[in-house]
Amino acid sequence: MNNAENKKTSIRELGKFGLIKHVTRRSNPENRSTVTGIGDDAAVIDSGQLMTLVSTDLLLEGIHFNLIYTPLKHLGYKAVIRAISDIYAMNGNPEQILISLGIGSRFTVEQIEDIYEGIYLACEKYKVDLVGGDTTSSLTGLTIGVTAIGSAEKNSIVRRDTAGTNDLICVTGDFGAAFMGLQLLERERRLFDKEKIMQPDLAGFEYVIGRQLKPEFPVKTLDELRQAGILPTSMIDVTEGVASDLIHICKLSGTGCKIFYSKVPVDYETSRVAEEFNIDPITPALNGGEDYELLFTVPPDQFEKVKMIESVKVIGYMTSSDSGYHIAGDDGSEVEITAQGWGQ
Amino acid sequence: MNNAENKKTSIRELGKFGLIKHVTRRSNPENRSTVTGIGDDAAVIDSGQLMTLVSTDLLLEGIHFNLIYTPLKHLGYKAVIRAISDIYAMNGNPEQILISLGIGSRFTVEQIEDIYEGIYLACEKYKVDLVGGDTTSSLTGLTIGVTAIGSAEKNSIVRRDTAGTNDLICVTGDFGAAFMGLQLLERERRLFDKEKIMQPDLAGFEYVIGRQLKPEFPVKTLDELRQAGILPTSMIDVTEGVASDLIHICKLSGTGCKIFYSKVPVDYETSRVAEEFNIDPITPALNGGEDYELLFTVPPDQFEKVKMIESVKVIGYMTSSDSGYHIAGDDGSEVEITAQGWGQ
Repeated sequence: MNNAENKKTSIRELGKFGLIKHVTRRSNPENRSTVTGIGDDAAVIDSGQLMTLVSTDLLLEGIHFNLIYTPLKHLGYKAVIRAISDIYAMNGNPEQILISLGIGSRFTVEQIEDIYEGIYLACEKYKVDLVGGDTTSSLTGLTIGVTAIGSAEKNSIVRRDTAGTNDLICVTGDFGAAFMGLQLLERERRLFDKEKIMQPDLAGFEYVIGRQLKPEFPVKTLDELRQAGILPTSMIDVTEGVASDLIHICKLSGTGCKIFYSKVPVDYETSRVAEEFNIDPITPALNGGEDYELLFTVPPDQFEKVKMIESVKVIGYMTSSDSGYHIAGDDGSEVEITAQGWGQ
Repeated sequence: MNNAENKKTSIRELGKFGLIKHVTRRSNPENRSTVTGIGDDAAVIDSGQLMTLVSTDLLLEGIHFNLIYTPLKHLGYKAVIRAISDIYAMNGNPEQILISLGIGSRFTVEQIEDIYEGIYLACEKYKVDLVGGDTTSSLTGLTIGVTAIGSAEKNSIVRRDTAGTNDLICVTGDFGAAFMGLQLLERERRLFDKEKIMQPDLAGFEYVIGRQLKPEFPVKTLDELRQAGILPTSMIDVTEGVASDLIHICKLSGTGCKIFYSKVPVDYETSRVAEEFNIDPITPALNGGEDYELLFTVPPDQFEKVKMIESVKVIGYMTSSDSGYHIAGDDGSEVEITAQGWGQ
């Protein structure tokens, strides 16, 4: 680093993952308990019998949420889902969270109560304890910091950098719904700004809006994988879109990938909304984000086993690193996929 | 909570600690590993042989720092000190930190490098590993979330709610310096805004400005206490001022307190700057904050032992809960002290 020359590099040039890689160092840890650090869903800390997993997230008003159409209770709920999904994505069990709030002067106590109501609702559902945090005033928007802590046995932790060539690429749920829900909410907001129509008509869009405002995490699938005796070779929670998160695993694992257009699960309602917006439904599925689904890889010989799990779909396979990242159409044509997630 | 009536309570009415108490619940934890939660410096998690301590902090531009006079490297350094001080204040050993950054579009990669340079400098000095975090764009100011993780043996953890009547109140270092440093920097900023004087004259103010921009934590004292066989009955890191943090311990422990005006350590330079601002030096010492010193209590029979530790000063003693919170002057007069910390 030579800042003496007053070099000015825009952050856009590096991108989110590039920036993290650029400013952080991989050196020998000072503490024996430090197992793995930056670069995965959560940090791993050796606590004796079990490994402790820790992950932290920052949610900023105007970037991650818009209070015009996000009920505060849903916001609290989603903040918890976002945090614990990083622990699940390491195949760990989330146990505690800490919540920090930066609160603007316009907020009332009752509004903060609403946020916490959502937080506690998610905590109860996912059996997580709220154990601390920080509260501070904010000059600008609402800021939420969430730290999630969990545990896992050493040998059951699944990382991002351990996928192998020929491994099957598996996903849970469907994709693009949260993104299309956001587009609908944004459209209604613009209408409201322009024409002051008070009651937006969102009937028939319950699924995509629900996926945006109140996401859930597919915990059941993790249990089913355990019961089936399947330990994924790599895993990530899909928060930036299938393309971005899959390519992230590929880059860290040193592989390429090939997925199939017709295999990427998209809900009917998502497709309908996408078409209303003149968007190919594959686009939000690949690059929308906020799906809070799992993407993982398993060795090819696990195909029969994984096929038996109803909540899991195989969408492609890993290739060698020089093959690049591709999506194949039904006609055999192939297109390169790129990481275009929001980068949040 | 009955929000149906659309009640609007201002957050100011409750205050920071009141708000946290109001919105959080104390219920039976879902997870066996959850030991203590909200209300202390850090959360305690049972990890088998050792307890895991976790604490999280949010630092917001315009509230916790002003980039006009805060070098980014110092900001990174201070963020680490702030986070690990919560672990030390439980008598634990900080081992890992996670840093989340919310970055406005005006920032360059080189500026983020500067922040991380300060972060790594503090990590090296305090032997802490940076193991993760989150990076996101921000529409407004710079936002820093820091999570610190540490460990402690179960029996050596020191809490805030366990001080006893008659216990001696002890402190490290001196107080009010960081606050007066901030006043000086603010004065220079106002001068600059008004007269565009480019080179502020801060000669002779190195100590108070250093305490504001690059605080250190008195780790040595924790070692000395261990070597002397002293386990404090309660402990807190002084971040809101002696009065606010002492009263916080009193409220949680169910005690009153009496401290002595002449015993509260204030550096000569702090006094000089306070007088220049026409402030009684005791005011920033009691209510300034950001001192990053330790305040702890020991049983009265430990007086001889604690007296031998040069870095520790006894400033008073705990009283019964109905006695209130007082500071006594040399002439025997007593004044009530109140919590007036910044509440950040």
